[in-house]
Amino acid sequence: MSVDEQAIRELVSTWMDATSRGNIDEVLELMDDDVVFLGAGRPPMRGKSQFADNTRAAAGKFRIDGSADVQEVRVFGDWAYCWVELTVTMYPADGGAPVRRAGPGLSVLRKTPTGKWVTFRDANMLGPAK
Amino acid sequence: MSVDEQAIRELVSTWMDATSRGNIDEVLELMDDDVVFLGAGRPPMRGKSQFADNTRAAAGKFRIDGSADVQEVRVFGDWAYCWVELTVTMYPADGGAPVRRAGPGLSVLRKTPTGKWVTFRDANMLGPAK
Repeated sequence: MSVDEQAIRELVSTWMDATSRGNIDEVLELMDDDVVFLGAGRPPMRGKSQFADNTRAAAGKFRIDGSADVQEVRVFGDWAYCWVELTVTMYPADGGAPVRRAGPGLSVLRKTPTGKWVTFRDANMLGPAK
Repeated sequence: MSVDEQAIRELVSTWMDATSRGNIDEVLELMDDDVVFLGAGRPPMRGKSQFADNTRAAAGKFRIDGSADVQEVRVFGDWAYCWVELTVTMYPADGGAPVRRAGPGLSVLRKTPTGKWVTFRDANMLGPAK
């Protein structure tokens, strides 16, 4: 496995861990300033600041725990894509029943001039878990 | 606009046109043999032959008409990604009410040794249209 592929797999793992710990600042370090998050039924979420606002607003409502099973990483110089299969459980802060969601994610990543990989585009295909 | 970006935009346009005309063979020419189609609520659809089987099975049940608004194309040598916003209408063959769906798509494409671009990974985020 190449150093780049290993770095991208670690990014995925850190992302899930930091999300479970509610450490939003740590997650923000893993994305480009101009990141775009795509998903069904909502407009594109553009930029790190919008992700931060939305995630901080949601943090009071539920806690998220999840895992990502990396299916494929391909690196093209300073760009790469990564396909993961995600399983996520959302625990409402009001003590309501947890909600499980699962599905694939496809991300485009770029390597910054300092050699660090960050998420640049993200396609979220989570749906109700069976 | 680069020749590569133009070729990828033409691929998107041809895909939608050929789909509307029900020309499955023409659509198959636009994807890699080892393509993977990802979406919510279903297992990954792997390979051109699985796409062909599924699409031929669906062709008797409904006709699909749609449009794709290209948001972004980025080319990295022989690889690229493309983000589109899709609007699709499915017309049931039994005369039932048409179903409209909309949402983003994120594709990874590769340039074959002959210089032709093909879809390699595809993330489908269509949901009910508002």
